[in-house]
Amino acid sequence: MKALYFDGRLALREVEKPRPGPGEALLQVTLAGICGTDLEILKGYSGFRGILGHEFVGHVVECAEKKWVGKRVVGEINISCGECDLCLWGLGRHCSRRTVLGIANRDGAFAEYLVLPVVNLHEVPKSIPDEAAVFVEPLAAAAEILEQMTVLPATQVAVLGDGRLGLLVAQVLHQAKANVTVIGKHGWKLDLARSWGIKGTTAGDGQVRDRSFRVVVEATGSPTGLRDALRLVAPRGTVVMKSTFQEKAQFDTSKLVVDEITLLGSRCGNFSIALDLLARGQVKVGHLLSKTFPLEAGLEAFAYVKETPCLKVLLATAASGT
Amino acid sequence: MKALYFDGRLALREVEKPRPGPGEALLQVTLAGICGTDLEILKGYSGFRGILGHEFVGHVVECAEKKWVGKRVVGEINISCGECDLCLWGLGRHCSRRTVLGIANRDGAFAEYLVLPVVNLHEVPKSIPDEAAVFVEPLAAAAEILEQMTVLPATQVAVLGDGRLGLLVAQVLHQAKANVTVIGKHGWKLDLARSWGIKGTTAGDGQVRDRSFRVVVEATGSPTGLRDALRLVAPRGTVVMKSTFQEKAQFDTSKLVVDEITLLGSRCGNFSIALDLLARGQVKVGHLLSKTFPLEAGLEAFAYVKETPCLKVLLATAASGT
Repeated sequence: MKALYFDGRLALREVEKPRPGPGEALLQVTLAGICGTDLEILKGYSGFRGILGHEFVGHVVECAEKKWVGKRVVGEINISCGECDLCLWGLGRHCSRRTVLGIANRDGAFAEYLVLPVVNLHEVPKSIPDEAAVFVEPLAAAAEILEQMTVLPATQVAVLGDGRLGLLVAQVLHQAKANVTVIGKHGWKLDLARSWGIKGTTAGDGQVRDRSFRVVVEATGSPTGLRDALRLVAPRGTVVMKSTFQEKAQFDTSKLVVDEITLLGSRCGNFSIALDLLARGQVKVGHLLSKTFPLEAGLEAFAYVKETPCLKVLLATAASGT
Repeated sequence: MKALYFDGRLALREVEKPRPGPGEALLQVTLAGICGTDLEILKGYSGFRGILGHEFVGHVVECAEKKWVGKRVVGEINISCGECDLCLWGLGRHCSRRTVLGIANRDGAFAEYLVLPVVNLHEVPKSIPDEAAVFVEPLAAAAEILEQMTVLPATQVAVLGDGRLGLLVAQVLHQAKANVTVIGKHGWKLDLARSWGIKGTTAGDGQVRDRSFRVVVEATGSPTGLRDALRLVAPRGTVVMKSTFQEKAQFDTSKLVVDEITLLGSRCGNFSIALDLLARGQVKVGHLLSKTFPLEAGLEAFAYVKETPCLKVLLATAASGT
C-alpha cells in the first residue's frame, strides 16, 4: 500500500499492508488530517520514525469481532497496555508503555490502511460526514480542557492563536458559555471566529488588557506564546498549554510564582465527547477545511501547509471516492 | 535609626525613623530574618531600592488605635489598596497597586523601626517566642500551598530543596498527613527532616523514581529546579513553584503538555494559619535557626548566609535584649 513515511526525510513509499493482531482491527483510511504535531515531528519532535498521521476517519475492513466490519470509525490515538496502574485508573492516555498512532512507535494514518485495537474505535454517527469526522481527534484535544478544569459561564477566556486548534478550542469554550476572545494574526481566521459569535482580535489592537483574563489558552504552536499568555492572564488565573514543539521555552517563572498562576498542560481528549459536540452541531468545522490532496500528493500537501496561510489540509485515499 | 539599605549596594545607614500615616502603626523591630528573596534582590530581582527585610517580629510603639500599643506582633507584607476588585474579592495579596515590605516600594524590616497598616498586624500569642514568631512569614508562604490545592492524606509528595523554605514546606505537608520526601543536598539538613519523621534523600541515591510523585514542590531557589521537578512528577501531577529568582528558567513545555502536568505558582500565605501551626506545635522551627547577628553587623550576616551552609540567619536590634 502507499504511505507517507518519515525516517528523517518524508517520502511517499510503497509499504506492506499492516496485519491486525489479537484484539485489533484493520481499517481502510478515507481521509486524514495534517496537524501541527506532524510538522514538529519533521523537525525532530518525539524522534518518531514510521508512517505519520493521527487524525483520520475510515472503515473497518478486517476484525475478529465481526460486528465492527464495515463500520465507519474514528480511533483514539493512544494505545495503552490496559494493565498498569494508570490504565486501571482511567488514565490510559498516560500509560508509560503506550504507543501513539503516527507519533510514537506505531505507524499512522497517512496510508491506505492502518491497524488499531478495537477498544480504540468509535463508530461515527450517520449525521457526521467524513469531512467533519476527520476533526474528531483535534476536537477531542480541544475539549480535554473541560475535562481538566471547570470553566464557568461568563469566564473571561483568551485563546492565543487563530490556527486550527485555537479555533476549535475557542468553539468548545464558547459552547460552554465562556466569554471567549481569540487573539490571532489573520483577519480572515478572526472573521471566522466572529461568524460563530466569538470575539476575535489581533494582539496589537489595544482591545486586550494585560492581566485581564481568568483563563488563557496557549495554542500558538510557538515557544513565545507562553510569554504572551503570562502577560494576559490575571493573578491566580490559569494558562492552558496546548502547543507541543521541539524547542524549549524560556520564561519568567517569578511571574508565575508572584501572580500565583496555574500552568496546565493539556493534550489528548475523549473522542465520544468530540463526536457528541459535532453531532449536536455545537462545533462547526466546515470552514476549517482549506484543501484536500490525494495521499499520493502528500509531499505537496505538506509543502502547502508550510507555505500557505491555511487551516486544515486533508489527505484523501482512493477509498474516499474523491 | 539604623537600617540596612540597598541602592544597588547594601549598606548600613543612619536613616530617618519612619512616621505612621492614617491607619498605620509604628513598630519597633525585635528580630528579622534573612530570606532567599533578599539575596535575589541584591542580584537585581524586583528592582527594589530601600530598606530590605520582610520577615520580622516586633512591638507596636505608636498607633492611633490605642489597643495595639505595646502588643507583640508580626505583619503581613503585602500592603493593598483595599478598594480594587481583587482586594474586595479577598485577593489583596495580588492587588496591582500593592506595595510589599522590603520588596516593592516600601521600606522593610532590617531596621530599628518600620511602619505597617494596622490591618496587616497579627498579635503573637504568648506561647510563641520571638525566635519562632520570626518564621511566621515564610511558614505562611509554605502553608499557602494548602490554600491553593488539596493534598490528600498519603499523597506522595517530593519537596525539592532542603533549605529554609523546603524544610518548612515539608513540615506543613507532613502535618497534613501527606507522604513527604525531602530531596536535598546536605546530610545534616536531611537528618533534620528525618528527626521530624519526614523522609530525606539526595537526588542521586537511587531512592527516588522518576515520574513517581503526585505532587512535587520546587523550593530549590534555582532555575534548574524546575527541570528536576518535571522529571519526578507523575503524569497528571502537580509541580508547585515556590522559588523566585532573577534569572529566567528554560524548560521543555512539551513534557508539561504530553504528561498534562499542572505547574502551580505559589507565594505568600495567610499569617493566622502560620501562627496556629506554631501555637499547636505542628511545625518545629527551633532547629532551623543557624545564627543571630546584631543589626549593626548586617553586612557580615549577609556574607555569612552566602558563604556558609546554614538555615535561617536573624538580625537582632537593641530592642531584642540580646
